Amino acid sequence: MPQINAERLLGDLYALRRIGEYKTGVHRPSLSPDDVRSRHWLAKKLTDAGLTAEIDGIANVFGWDLSGDAHAGRKLLIGSHIETQPHAGWLDGAMGVIFGLEAARTLGAGIDVAAWFDEEGWFGSFLGSRSFCGLVPDAEIAAKKRRGDNTPLLTALDQAGLAGRKRVHADPARYLGYLEAHIEQGAELELSGDWIGIVTAIVGSYRFRIEFEGAQNHAGTTRMARRKDAGVALVRLATAINDRFPSIGNERTVWTTGQIAVEPGSPSIVPGKAEMVFQFRDTDPMLLARLGSELETLVAEANLGPCRVSLITTGTTAPAAMYARFQDAFEAAAAAHAPGRFERMPSGAGHDAQILAGIMPSGMLFVPSIGGISHHYAEDTSDDDLVLGCQVFVDAAASLLSG
Amino acid sequence: MPQINAERLLGDLYALRRIGEYKTGVHRPSLSPDDVRSRHWLAKKLTDAGLTAEIDGIANVFGWDLSGDAHAGRKLLIGSHIETQPHAGWLDGAMGVIFGLEAARTLGAGIDVAAWFDEEGWFGSFLGSRSFCGLVPDAEIAAKKRRGDNTPLLTALDQAGLAGRKRVHADPARYLGYLEAHIEQGAELELSGDWIGIVTAIVGSYRFRIEFEGAQNHAGTTRMARRKDAGVALVRLATAINDRFPSIGNERTVWTTGQIAVEPGSPSIVPGKAEMVFQFRDTDPMLLARLGSELETLVAEANLGPCRVSLITTGTTAPAAMYARFQDAFEAAAAAHAPGRFERMPSGAGHDAQILAGIMPSGMLFVPSIGGISHHYAEDTSDDDLVLGCQVFVDAAASLLSG
Repeated sequence: MPQINAERLLGDLYALRRIGEYKTGVHRPSLSPDDVRSRHWLAKKLTDAGLTAEIDGIANVFGWDLSGDAHAGRKLLIGSHIETQPHAGWLDGAMGVIFGLEAARTLGAGIDVAAWFDEEGWFGSFLGSRSFCGLVPDAEIAAKKRRGDNTPLLTALDQAGLAGRKRVHADPARYLGYLEAHIEQGAELELSGDWIGIVTAIVGSYRFRIEFEGAQNHAGTTRMARRKDAGVALVRLATAINDRFPSIGNERTVWTTGQIAVEPGSPSIVPGKAEMVFQFRDTDPMLLARLGSELETLVAEANLGPCRVSLITTGTTAPAAMYARFQDAFEAAAAAHAPGRFERMPSGAGHDAQILAGIMPSGMLFVPSIGGISHHYAEDTSDDDLVLGCQVFVDAAASLLSG
Repeated sequence: MPQINAERLLGDLYALRRIGEYKTGVHRPSLSPDDVRSRHWLAKKLTDAGLTAEIDGIANVFGWDLSGDAHAGRKLLIGSHIETQPHAGWLDGAMGVIFGLEAARTLGAGIDVAAWFDEEGWFGSFLGSRSFCGLVPDAEIAAKKRRGDNTPLLTALDQAGLAGRKRVHADPARYLGYLEAHIEQGAELELSGDWIGIVTAIVGSYRFRIEFEGAQNHAGTTRMARRKDAGVALVRLATAINDRFPSIGNERTVWTTGQIAVEPGSPSIVPGKAEMVFQFRDTDPMLLARLGSELETLVAEANLGPCRVSLITTGTTAPAAMYARFQDAFEAAAAAHAPGRFERMPSGAGHDAQILAGIMPSGMLFVPSIGGISHHYAEDTSDDDLVLGCQVFVDAAASLLSG
């Protein structure tokens, strides 16, 4: 099997890390000046690797293998993303793109590389990979604004010099499938002492805003029996969820209340309104549906109390199974380079691969995250794990192309 | 009994309402230009009533009855406050001060009037009445800043032309006691159809900040069994409080979680920190102590979970019983003017009378609040209830002075 060039791989990761550097991490919001700079840096790297580079009308960066015989076998598409969460880690996304670049350089042919725009959702959700898969109408692009500064997406694309460019759509017939490497963003590998994670499926998620409406009142003069305390209704529902969900979910099912707000938020005023943002994730679509149904039951029970409780579904994402043959190829490569130090596991985080899986066979490989830290500048992975992970990844790609 | 002048009373209340008018209410933060204007307006009114007006070094406004024989019987001190909550009601505080003015005008002698500075706590808590009672050291005044704009109290006093003035301290021997009239700020009177509330006691309160420290993590990649979710710890404790407090409190006991915050407050991040602001109130000091003890028990139980829970006491206020003889005087006057339409009741809100009660006998009278609304510009009381309330109040004062 062909050997990757570890020095070249790490050199490129370190170079990309310097664009938008923040402490030990990186701050590259989608279409920020540093993000645009990193896309042009990547296009140059892809060109240097012998690929035909292209930045499309939604800032996806591609490196096309247009060399050789047009009748050669089908190719592998390898990608991830290069924008980051705010003040976040240097490897989240970037690693998978550079693994693709290294695969193209190591194998010489058969690899297209993609850096999908805005996986991190500054403007939307998986905008670049969804656009490639034909899931983003022009109207959605016209409506999007960047969180934080509200810059319209069209303005940001114009400022980046991309206005008027066509968006590239997938030609699934060109490919054997899609591969993506990523840091785990959790502590499973570190806890089990493994070096390679082979993703079996990417979780789906149901996402909600739950609103509580009661009556704002003076905290000294309003008897408990007469109160319609929206905050009390909220903590009761949140507690009921935590009491009931364990009996439905399994050990990998997760649910999270990430935001809580009560209004007006004054020590001596009974809250008249409250809101929580809630989500749950699992790889089993039927289990997700059962949790959704249970949540509706709990909200109906909550509505028997003094406050009006409204359940608003803000989004759902279907679970995506990874292609079995790709899992086997990763496992064979891992068995060769890291015997006994790999495991199959679901991905609790979302990835572009869950979008690509809708139009072609897809597979994902994880490397360990030190301390399980992610979405923070302290996020890190050892050089040894990066080099080993890339070698296993490229081996699997080579075997798929030759198979 | 002497008759009040209803037209004069309402005219003064309407005139004061125009200073800092906001919609149907008033916005007069302590020592704002409108607040200072209202203090000078009041001083003029007190002078016109034949009293000797004074604004002291902490912006308390006094009208001293220095007329007549120095050997005459002891006097009544009547007061409340004239600054307001933000964009709040026109009667909260102002009514009690104007009732004092009307009492002085109607009775001709025996009444000192006070408008206590900052009952509403823009700089501190009951600063004016506490200063009068000798409870505010100079160091406290030097340290206070106005919430919202952080103006130091000393700067604000200087800008109001009050720098260097002495603060007046109480001479309890001068008084039979202290009387205060106030809007109810609740719906008890309206619900029972009564016109007059005779306050039996002002509730005490225990106030807390409860901090929860867990571990911030990715909401997709961190299994439930490994989480230290500070938000979950918070809602569990808040629910436990709501489950256990009813068995300790009585129908008048109230407890409130007015603020809830989780950090970082992102839909896909397990909260690593959370905080709630909690308080409870009752008129029985032993009941307050039992609730405090129960809260400590619940926090100790919460600490058996994965998060560290810290209970920080931010303040306690002792309940203040109103003087029985003053309650009887209010009741006799109410029986004459509003037969069968009065009731004895505790005050769930705090008032300057709870401070004055520490140095002299004190009594309070309530008039109805329409819809129980308070701390909002919609706060209101009918003219009939204002006039009736003032007549009962002045009758009681007259009978105490003559008794």
